[in-house]
Amino acid sequence: MQLHELYSSLAIRNDNKLVVLLIDGLRGTSHEDYGYMTELEYATHPNIDRLASRSATGMLTPVLPGITPGSGPAHLGLFGLDPISFNIGRGVLEALGIGLVPEPTDVLARGNFCTVDDKGVIVDRRAGRIPTQICEQRLNLLRDIRVPRSDIELHAVQDHRFVLRLKGTDLDGNIANTDPGTVGAKPKPAKALAPGAETTANIVNAFVDQALDRLKGESGANALVLRGFSMLPNIPSFYELYGLRSAALAIYPMYKGLARTVGMDILDCGKTFPDQLRTLEAYWDRYDYFFIHYKYTDSCGEDGDFLSKVNHIENLDSCIDSIVRLDPAVLAITGDHSTPASLKSHSWHPVPLLLVSSTCRRDGSTAFTETVCAKGALGNMESKYLMGLLLAHALRLEKFGA
Amino acid sequence: MQLHELYSSLAIRNDNKLVVLLIDGLRGTSHEDYGYMTELEYATHPNIDRLASRSATGMLTPVLPGITPGSGPAHLGLFGLDPISFNIGRGVLEALGIGLVPEPTDVLARGNFCTVDDKGVIVDRRAGRIPTQICEQRLNLLRDIRVPRSDIELHAVQDHRFVLRLKGTDLDGNIANTDPGTVGAKPKPAKALAPGAETTANIVNAFVDQALDRLKGESGANALVLRGFSMLPNIPSFYELYGLRSAALAIYPMYKGLARTVGMDILDCGKTFPDQLRTLEAYWDRYDYFFIHYKYTDSCGEDGDFLSKVNHIENLDSCIDSIVRLDPAVLAITGDHSTPASLKSHSWHPVPLLLVSSTCRRDGSTAFTETVCAKGALGNMESKYLMGLLLAHALRLEKFGA
Repeated sequence: MQLHELYSSLAIRNDNKLVVLLIDGLRGTSHEDYGYMTELEYATHPNIDRLASRSATGMLTPVLPGITPGSGPAHLGLFGLDPISFNIGRGVLEALGIGLVPEPTDVLARGNFCTVDDKGVIVDRRAGRIPTQICEQRLNLLRDIRVPRSDIELHAVQDHRFVLRLKGTDLDGNIANTDPGTVGAKPKPAKALAPGAETTANIVNAFVDQALDRLKGESGANALVLRGFSMLPNIPSFYELYGLRSAALAIYPMYKGLARTVGMDILDCGKTFPDQLRTLEAYWDRYDYFFIHYKYTDSCGEDGDFLSKVNHIENLDSCIDSIVRLDPAVLAITGDHSTPASLKSHSWHPVPLLLVSSTCRRDGSTAFTETVCAKGALGNMESKYLMGLLLAHALRLEKFGA
Repeated sequence: MQLHELYSSLAIRNDNKLVVLLIDGLRGTSHEDYGYMTELEYATHPNIDRLASRSATGMLTPVLPGITPGSGPAHLGLFGLDPISFNIGRGVLEALGIGLVPEPTDVLARGNFCTVDDKGVIVDRRAGRIPTQICEQRLNLLRDIRVPRSDIELHAVQDHRFVLRLKGTDLDGNIANTDPGTVGAKPKPAKALAPGAETTANIVNAFVDQALDRLKGESGANALVLRGFSMLPNIPSFYELYGLRSAALAIYPMYKGLARTVGMDILDCGKTFPDQLRTLEAYWDRYDYFFIHYKYTDSCGEDGDFLSKVNHIENLDSCIDSIVRLDPAVLAITGDHSTPASLKSHSWHPVPLLLVSSTCRRDGSTAFTETVCAKGALGNMESKYLMGLLLAHALRLEKFGA
């Protein structure tokens, strides 16, 4: 029995509401320019700290020690799904990131325009990072390509990047990258990685052959490569699993998409955090579980901008009382992964967790920082266990066994 | 997917160097004669303590809570291999311990000379712990025994103990002990535990029959029993798994042997800890990962000699700066298991871990003791996760998932 099946088998319904406030890339690590503090330690956040005094705290390990997660595994873990068993492919994630709503029968791939020489050998894997507008123009050259047994959609992402979407029946995403991953090699033909994927590989090759033919005369972006062929994993919905009517308050498409994979309703929630909170209030009576995604901390971390990340933590803190006033039975504040400004990327460091509920044992925490949470009573657990813990604190899990 | 396969699938190469300083049997437990302190708490170790202030600390559970590991599982865990999946048999470990280099096709067993009465019933399982010299003499009586389909080697270990090594093709180590494990019973015939092991069992029995015949007239050590039949497990190398050029600096044969099972180069490193450290410096540019094994703490723990163990910790501390000066990207100081002087044996207690890297969050630790590490930010994790954590801190693991 997988973990989510165990939780699911015990789930019962009641009126208790759960709110997860996910601060993307929240966790930092010691920064030598700021007294070896993290962003969360450097920031002033009196309102969250006040919550800490009636909370239990701990740490979440997104996947396993040392593993730096992409956004896909990081979110699936928080939704109670083993992020190693339920892998979301690059093609699907890229599609979610631009707001596409893939069907379970679609195959998706991430495409890159690239530059090849007159022998077809790749000399620039990103075609000089052409502007998105040129990407659109090139895609327009390809949009009327027809291939038997599949409809093909092409969607620009940014710069040289696009999404290839194959729609059809009996498609199979077990296909190796055509991208050789290096300059000095030719794009590879699509190759089936499983017997059932032969037809899909043939469809891809038929498309690519025509596409390369049409791109041949162009300057710069005169070829393409594809990678991350994938299909939506067969993920059970929150309602099916836990009996939760669930809603996502996210601004960026990828996080809306990730929430959609577990069947959350995606609420139109404006463009700012206060907009998100107003939407929360407006829909408060209609759902049991709210997932609020706060993006800015991750972006600043990726940029290596320590002080901006600090600033966004402080901004968030100043708004937090409008969640607290709604008095959810369970409020969890955490991150999906770390994005330390000192590393300018996602990292493997476990993420602080603050859990507020009348069923918590108040563990003496008086602030929300890595230092406090690393000593918190909840200890350090894999993120996939959070969902069960939240349901438990909402008294939504029955006793296991007699 | 097994854990080492997950780490392996994400491993990338760079120039960052890793050093693991393994203090064998490091961990102690409260000793009533010394203010209920452990050896590590009682010892003075200012140099390691200074490192603590720029480290993150935690605890490693060698196998699982309550499990006391032998040296085999304890080391395999630290090398990133699940110590339950990869079992090193007693015969193989005994061979490694005397410096043999088993081939993957060899079958090895631990042998004991014993004493039987005139009905062949064991009356002393260790033949009065005969001196090693007598053990050698008895083995000389047996060395020209010939058996079809296998070459047989016999190597004295210590006292009544020896190693039986069968060399051949198609040998199989799935053979039950001939040692009944008690006095009052006869040595059992070797019995195949799997269909493929019948031939090997016949070889063993042919050898044992001749051996018992030759020993019959001797006094004291007049029979033998065999146990722990085993072959080298099929263990992937560090280079293959993690892309690490790795070297072991160990003085005792068994630890060289354990390091050899994961493909480390075994450096000739003298007879003392300062010798080991000079070797480290000499080979610094040639490897990515260094495993330094410090034995003396374990031996004193086994002897129940609290103060000697304290003394060896203090000696080690006085030399530590020559590692620090090399400025490894990641330095981990830990143990393979506990050997509390109060228990005079290995124990199950989790072992303190100190991890120094610029990518650490300094967790406020100011000393290296069980008390500090049990509250450290890294928490308590199974030893098998250490390898991934070290690779992560050396920025040698790619992101998992999109």
